Amino acid sequence: MRRMKIRSYAYTKGPDEIKFKDGSRWRHPYRAKNSYQLDMYEKVSREAVEKAEVEMSDIDLIIVASAGMVQMIPCTAALLQERIAPNSGIPCMDVNTTCTSFITALDVASSFLVTELYQRILIVSGDLVSHFINPNQEESYRLFSDSGVAFIVETTKENKGILYSKQETWSEGAHTTEIRGGLTAYGPSLYSEDTKEDFLFDMDGKSVLMLTLDKLPKMLKETLQHNNIQLSDISKIVPHQASRALFIVERKLKLKKGQLINYFEELGNMVSGSVPYTLGLAMDQGEIKEGDLILLIGTAAGLTMNCMLIQL
Amino acid sequence: MRRMKIRSYAYTKGPDEIKFKDGSRWRHPYRAKNSYQLDMYEKVSREAVEKAEVEMSDIDLIIVASAGMVQMIPCTAALLQERIAPNSGIPCMDVNTTCTSFITALDVASSFLVTELYQRILIVSGDLVSHFINPNQEESYRLFSDSGVAFIVETTKENKGILYSKQETWSEGAHTTEIRGGLTAYGPSLYSEDTKEDFLFDMDGKSVLMLTLDKLPKMLKETLQHNNIQLSDISKIVPHQASRALFIVERKLKLKKGQLINYFEELGNMVSGSVPYTLGLAMDQGEIKEGDLILLIGTAAGLTMNCMLIQL
Repeated sequence: MRRMKIRSYAYTKGPDEIKFKDGSRWRHPYRAKNSYQLDMYEKVSREAVEKAEVEMSDIDLIIVASAGMVQMIPCTAALLQERIAPNSGIPCMDVNTTCTSFITALDVASSFLVTELYQRILIVSGDLVSHFINPNQEESYRLFSDSGVAFIVETTKENKGILYSKQETWSEGAHTTEIRGGLTAYGPSLYSEDTKEDFLFDMDGKSVLMLTLDKLPKMLKETLQHNNIQLSDISKIVPHQASRALFIVERKLKLKKGQLINYFEELGNMVSGSVPYTLGLAMDQGEIKEGDLILLIGTAAGLTMNCMLIQL
Repeated sequence: MRRMKIRSYAYTKGPDEIKFKDGSRWRHPYRAKNSYQLDMYEKVSREAVEKAEVEMSDIDLIIVASAGMVQMIPCTAALLQERIAPNSGIPCMDVNTTCTSFITALDVASSFLVTELYQRILIVSGDLVSHFINPNQEESYRLFSDSGVAFIVETTKENKGILYSKQETWSEGAHTTEIRGGLTAYGPSLYSEDTKEDFLFDMDGKSVLMLTLDKLPKMLKETLQHNNIQLSDISKIVPHQASRALFIVERKLKLKKGQLINYFEELGNMVSGSVPYTLGLAMDQGEIKEGDLILLIGTAAGLTMNCMLIQL
């Protein structure tokens, strides 16, 4: 086990609620020039530090684990540090596996705790989706919400931490979920009325679902076998709130009522914010408690898939 | 010590040589739409795997550690996997601290090796700077070269690995080196003849140098003290080839002749490719040998600074 304790967390969602048939989405009004991603990150980071009853200077690493960055240079974590801990020298880095970036960041953070490179780490996730979703692509447009989520994790001698984790990337799906424009493959100078959709989120939901159904059950099965447990041994499953397909998963896996945390109607898909927001909210609502064995699971653009067993 | 062995490496530079007063720069002809970043990554990844005398399927994690990404979604490592290992399931992630991304990725990779999450990791760095440098900003325009660099690192029982590492980020310098446009803070829709320089690299070299001179010597001193060594105990220093200021550093630190690897005239500043390219080239030229104690050191946008002591 990679010992790790969740010290505190905080989360926020986009200020404006939009109602769709399958639930609420939370969005910030679109502005091409804005600081809202950092505004959300600053708010939740300060709140998490306050709840942790530590000083900002007690944080010894800031990881931003999001799908979308604020600027191409420097890394987003450095821009966040400028807001919350200037003149601190706290090291900053970005980790990116799109929607499951938070789970991957927990792999990184917990490994740093084991090697004692760092002792207390702030991980910030969530995306400003309102900046890059395409109103003309109804399927994806109605999925997403803006969010910012901060978790502080630290070393512990208690029997808490990551029991197991597994990530797979299946690049057959690399172009089923993408934003092609804006960086080195397809530069901003190509932006025009004709090309503008190339700079927005583009998803082929059916292909994503097909590849997920092909690969994810096998990964889940391996996770259970490797740990010699049954699905029923897991207190709660915290999935990436990808879509309404969560309801199908719940039935297919024959889960106990309430075992799968499903906030999709209330939150929508928060991209990199989805898993940590769901985890935080479930803890606040008493659905997840200290001592629980939980499974974080999700798919991301790439197509990447993550499973992580955590003893809380 | 985080045990880790360099199994193999490979590097390439931009195809076109441009001569400046202070040396050669290597660039790919600018095209707004191009795949050259991935072309370089594919070439060096295949070469590193061949030199390692392993199969691609023996790699169990791909980390892309670069300053500039290829697309906003998915992560660059997934796009690279599509080229070199489709249908493999090899997990993919991006790590970003701009120019020192490779050093940070070694922190991540070596910690993963210690926790046994992964056993053999492909790290790919380097940037397609020709895509985002500004010909009107002479100071920065004449610094940079395109590059792709791949290293394969793995577990070992030998007495090799990372003895110590330290990273600091000083966000007072967050805006002294940046690309403001293209992502969520300043969207592609703002691109115009008037704003186009906001989508290009912008550096205030003097401010970077001032902040570096203020912070880096202290960090280096702490690194030496913590490890109870003198500068003269270090076989070779592999710095980020930031600029001609390397020559000043060499004199100021009173280093032994040849102790600091300085390829700036030959290579220019290769952004995230700089440190690993310098390391690989120095090993190929016999300047760095197995058994050497080396120091990787560099500054990055952020302003981030890294020091890492490696027993080869």
